[in-house]
Amino acid sequence: MNGNSSTAGKPIRCKAAICRKAGDRLVIEEVIVAPPSRHELRIKIICTALCQSDVIFSKLVDPPAIYPRILGHEAIGVVESVGEDVTGVKPGDTVIPTFMSDCGDCADCHSEKSNLCSTLPFNITPYMPREDKTRFTDLNGNPLYHLFYISSFSEYTVVDKNYFVKIDPSFPPDRACLLSCGVATGVGAAWRTAEVEPGTTVAVFGLGTIGLAAAEGARLCGAKRIIGVDVNPDKFEMGKKFGLTDFVNPKTCGDKSVSEVILEMTNGGADYCFECVGMASLVEEAFACCRHGWGKTVVLGVDKPGTPLKFSSTDVLRGHKILTGALYGGLKAKRDVPILCKRYLDKELQLDEFVTHSVKFEEINKAFDLLEEGKSLRCVIWMDK
Amino acid sequence: MNGNSSTAGKPIRCKAAICRKAGDRLVIEEVIVAPPSRHELRIKIICTALCQSDVIFSKLVDPPAIYPRILGHEAIGVVESVGEDVTGVKPGDTVIPTFMSDCGDCADCHSEKSNLCSTLPFNITPYMPREDKTRFTDLNGNPLYHLFYISSFSEYTVVDKNYFVKIDPSFPPDRACLLSCGVATGVGAAWRTAEVEPGTTVAVFGLGTIGLAAAEGARLCGAKRIIGVDVNPDKFEMGKKFGLTDFVNPKTCGDKSVSEVILEMTNGGADYCFECVGMASLVEEAFACCRHGWGKTVVLGVDKPGTPLKFSSTDVLRGHKILTGALYGGLKAKRDVPILCKRYLDKELQLDEFVTHSVKFEEINKAFDLLEEGKSLRCVIWMDK
Ligand SMILES: [Zn+2]
Ligand SMILES: [Zn+2]
Ligand SMILES: [Zn+2]
Ligand SMILES: [Zn+2]
Repeated sequence: MNGNSSTAGKPIRCKAAICRKAGDRLVIEEVIVAPPSRHELRIKIICTALCQSDVIFSKLVDPPAIYPRILGHEAIGVVESVGEDVTGVKPGDTVIPTFMSDCGDCADCHSEKSNLCSTLPFNITPYMPREDKTRFTDLNGNPLYHLFYISSFSEYTVVDKNYFVKIDPSFPPDRACLLSCGVATGVGAAWRTAEVEPGTTVAVFGLGTIGLAAAEGARLCGAKRIIGVDVNPDKFEMGKKFGLTDFVNPKTCGDKSVSEVILEMTNGGADYCFECVGMASLVEEAFACCRHGWGKTVVLGVDKPGTPLKFSSTDVLRGHKILTGALYGGLKAKRDVPILCKRYLDKELQLDEFVTHSVKFEEINKAFDLLEEGKSLRCVIWMDK
Repeated sequence: MNGNSSTAGKPIRCKAAICRKAGDRLVIEEVIVAPPSRHELRIKIICTALCQSDVIFSKLVDPPAIYPRILGHEAIGVVESVGEDVTGVKPGDTVIPTFMSDCGDCADCHSEKSNLCSTLPFNITPYMPREDKTRFTDLNGNPLYHLFYISSFSEYTVVDKNYFVKIDPSFPPDRACLLSCGVATGVGAAWRTAEVEPGTTVAVFGLGTIGLAAAEGARLCGAKRIIGVDVNPDKFEMGKKFGLTDFVNPKTCGDKSVSEVILEMTNGGADYCFECVGMASLVEEAFACCRHGWGKTVVLGVDKPGTPLKFSSTDVLRGHKILTGALYGGLKAKRDVPILCKRYLDKELQLDEFVTHSVKFEEINKAFDLLEEGKSLRCVIWMDK
């Protein structure tokens, strides 16, 4: 059956890091991973990186919080077995899972513009995308919930066939896994959503991994000036690697707002602004210092669901500038991840610089500490080392 | 001197319709029109049309209200004389004045995207654009204020050299004058700002002249389905000429919001939405029923300055859709008006259908009545008939 391995069709008992309740350290336990159902594949994870969203979900008290949960969503692995109705991928293939569907067959997937598959719309559930069930149980048979349809903090996981991209097995796995979420989101936002043009000026609000990746994407597109905004002045030095040419610390703007400072620095506004923090007030600042006539502001940060963004109607009417937002930077995984991989191999796209740390699976909580202390960009967690 | 006429360099005494105070009927009086200063030209108006903004400014109590004022800003005329430093136009040329500068020489004028000249930014003042003085006085020597740097409800007016486009004198003047403001704004919004693609679905909120012109622009771009939204059910029949295929009356939506109704009708949203009323809540409705993935919402209506527009940050982030706004529909007058004229002559763009009435200058208040009673789209006021 499809060249599946000897474990095919059977539950696999393996180790996973479990978040048992809000704010708890993860605990590594043995779990049971069900075989892939129809439309699914089971993957043996090679390595996985820690993203800010994992930290947020590890502490979440209000819905969509749910425990016990297996976090992790930036990963790379090898297909162990595939379920029915899965074509184009076979056991032994190397894949990166993604958190957005790419069915290849709906109006959105056919469009060059949209990356929001309408067959399986983006949604935050603790289950598989096609049914409200988990593929993980603990040794007592109790369900362990999924995150973003990936849950890569496990030696094995099950993903849907719409949620992965095949990768050349020779590609460095600890670089490939970055393309599942954060780094790809920032780069994609500059490249695919904003379509940054050469010679332009860019402002990036928030210099975490997504913000620095937006700078990197802008650099890659040929931006001439890239202004970083962060309350941590150390970020300027770090950001220079990714093309930052200027830095604004909101804490040292005196009487001026960040937008006023940027309007002055740029003599009229940045051509592109990226909000990478997830703070409504910063989106408003970003839009305010975006150049009239053609400026684009891209919202990447996630504020609490439903938080209102406020703009002056006069500003929107008169500015002739664009406000938009993007999940996964507007990337279409199957189309764009291979291009990013090639650009990395061609030494155009920088990925190495994002991997500041690596740990063994048993040390996964150290990855959390490093990120929360602001010491790491991406810490790669190796399953097998 | 430049082939100027015998009146060149001298004040001209002629008739103008004056709005003496908020809410008053216009009165036709004799006024003195100064000769054009440096960078200016004086124009003999052939005809002028009445736009909703004239009505609004005739009733305005709060700033930027100022009286006595000469309204009117959709017009066509013949150059009577030109001041110093005016090239490329001479007495006898036919021109339409515009309310936005097109200096041809700044970053915005050089850009294909922006129509917001940065040499003389859009601004609502009661004076000429380069100095805080009027070119009109009454017979007692008191200033009469300008509107939008045009003030076409006068036999003669003075405009700045950045604020006009030359027109072939054989072009029907009562069609050409529509391209100064309202009709051009709607058509431009669909054509230049939204860049409506063939086969798409469009929703237009508010079916006054700008809204119907947005429909016309969408029709011209090949939109397949054009949904009009208006509280007046008679607008559907009127709008069919301009390509309307569907109609939604917010008053008969029952428990549903307009956006819910449109989301259902379109199975996921309109590809392009145009807000042509100037009501913050309608902008929010328009954005809400704009198709995720690629939808564009264009704000054309002017709400009270500073009125906040509110959007859910989640919607902006996740929708991957665009919010933007446009003055003059994003048109660059010198580039785009000649194209619109050609498309009219080629029987592609409909202009005749917007001219529902015409009156003599002495009957100008009738034009106000017709517009306020919702009976007219454009009423053309002939100066010389
Ligand atoms: Zn799809
Ligand atoms: Zn992430
Ligand atoms: Zn200019
Ligand atoms: Zn107007």
